[in-house]
Amino acid sequence: MRAIVFDETLHFDPAYPQPDPAPGDVLIRVRQAGICNTDMELVKGYMGFSGVLGHEFVGETPDGQRVVGEINIVTDPDEPFARCGIPSQSASRVTLGIDRKDGAFADYLTLPTENLHPVPDPVSDEQAVFVEPLAAGLQTLHMTHISPHERVVLIGAGKLGLLTAQVVALTGCELSVVCRHARQAELVTGWGIDAVGEGDLPPNSADIVIDCTGSQGGFAAALELVKPRGVLHLKSTYAGLPEADLTRLVVDEISVEVSRCGPFPAALRLLARGLIHTDALIDARYPLDEGVTAFEHAQRPGVLKVLLAVT
Amino acid sequence: MRAIVFDETLHFDPAYPQPDPAPGDVLIRVRQAGICNTDMELVKGYMGFSGVLGHEFVGETPDGQRVVGEINIVTDPDEPFARCGIPSQSASRVTLGIDRKDGAFADYLTLPTENLHPVPDPVSDEQAVFVEPLAAGLQTLHMTHISPHERVVLIGAGKLGLLTAQVVALTGCELSVVCRHARQAELVTGWGIDAVGEGDLPPNSADIVIDCTGSQGGFAAALELVKPRGVLHLKSTYAGLPEADLTRLVVDEISVEVSRCGPFPAALRLLARGLIHTDALIDARYPLDEGVTAFEHAQRPGVLKVLLAVT
Repeated sequence: MRAIVFDETLHFDPAYPQPDPAPGDVLIRVRQAGICNTDMELVKGYMGFSGVLGHEFVGETPDGQRVVGEINIVTDPDEPFARCGIPSQSASRVTLGIDRKDGAFADYLTLPTENLHPVPDPVSDEQAVFVEPLAAGLQTLHMTHISPHERVVLIGAGKLGLLTAQVVALTGCELSVVCRHARQAELVTGWGIDAVGEGDLPPNSADIVIDCTGSQGGFAAALELVKPRGVLHLKSTYAGLPEADLTRLVVDEISVEVSRCGPFPAALRLLARGLIHTDALIDARYPLDEGVTAFEHAQRPGVLKVLLAVT
Repeated sequence: MRAIVFDETLHFDPAYPQPDPAPGDVLIRVRQAGICNTDMELVKGYMGFSGVLGHEFVGETPDGQRVVGEINIVTDPDEPFARCGIPSQSASRVTLGIDRKDGAFADYLTLPTENLHPVPDPVSDEQAVFVEPLAAGLQTLHMTHISPHERVVLIGAGKLGLLTAQVVALTGCELSVVCRHARQAELVTGWGIDAVGEGDLPPNSADIVIDCTGSQGGFAAALELVKPRGVLHLKSTYAGLPEADLTRLVVDEISVEVSRCGPFPAALRLLARGLIHTDALIDARYPLDEGVTAFEHAQRPGVLKVLLAVT
């Protein structure tokens, strides 16, 4: 099968071995896949990954059912987090296209049946490919209680940040999104959400600051904006270490909360109700064979979602 | 001025004394007001109220600014809750149309400047009159952390329940609304939210159950649906005492959380973004002079919002 493979270099392989579904697994024919900031960190060395990249996808089962799939795969079902239904923290997990498991930038992938969620009719393929990052955005609301009374600032208005901003705004809280590029600000404003420039906000003014920058500088930038006794919510995963002033956390009694993979059913519910804008986030579409070029496109500053059309 | 007054009996008074604004108060000319379940409880004896009823309104200031107003009025600004900016729990509070303060079913009312919020242009008068109960619905999200992973059931799909259901659904959680009347179920389903009948849900199956019944039976009905270690969230205020099995709470480790008055700015943000359906909740409109008839209409089973057009 065709695949975009990272193995010291990123390349297109026209004849990568098609995966063989283990018992309990389903062979999924990929329809669309999305390039995530994590993919770009993986080719910089994050997680020491090699294999087929890609974890955002919509595909179909052998009987033609459109599905999206949760990316964490439990390999020991008796492990405590696995038993509690939290595969994303199972110590035995492998992760689609991220950790010891070939991913979605290919004609086929395999996932356990329990990882799959049918895509309801009102949700198009190009919306469904956003379910994985939208679920990650929603996980912010699981790990941090955001009250409609609160002042919230989100930094990093990229692919994940613009999805997270939309779900955070639905709580009714007073949200401002810090935008580096005029186009991000236009999008955010068009959705009825407040957009501000870098440096526009007074320091120590937000109850909650959400870091979606995906970069080493995010922690310090978020810390500058949060109030004493506030919450700093981290969503960035990257290769490398930040300069993090942890003493400031203690002195100002700032809590650090975090989130990563989230609830697919909730993401599908919001998409089916038409509450999340995804079309405006798509910057380019490439066929799978041009995946390496698509990757280069996705790495340009200010570029949002780049999709790979597989079938 | 004209007013709907409760003073042992409910009656229309064509010549009630116009309120005189104290220093710091604004004289508001009422444009529209809404009849709430609490108003119907007040005429049954709740709070021992007498005076002009009404706490849901949109009006205008002497310089023509459209405003809505928070209903709790602090009379001692040095009192602890008042100092913390939580007038709804200030021990010194009086409450518009509910507790020792004449309300909105009249040509004029007075409120302190700090209680007022300008209504943005995209929000019509008939939407703005829902700000007070919508804010109360949003307070559910302040007092209870609702995760998008959770299974939530709301009982009591009346005026407050249908607004609360809409804000709860925006979190992405798996929400079912128990509907007694076919019309409620049609509304809820039309909004893309799951509607179920009484008795349709398995007992002890919800992480969170929200009681918006406004009645003595709500506690027991909600308790039947909540899981061990779940949350029972109470929003009902009424004259009388329920039969509440508190031992069951202890045995099943069920937390009771509650909420009442909520954030007006958040309600205005969601209305301005077109995220809340209010038109379908309006069952009747009466001029102020016919307020007693409007009240009788509002008390019929299954009737949702009845509005009083004042100007």
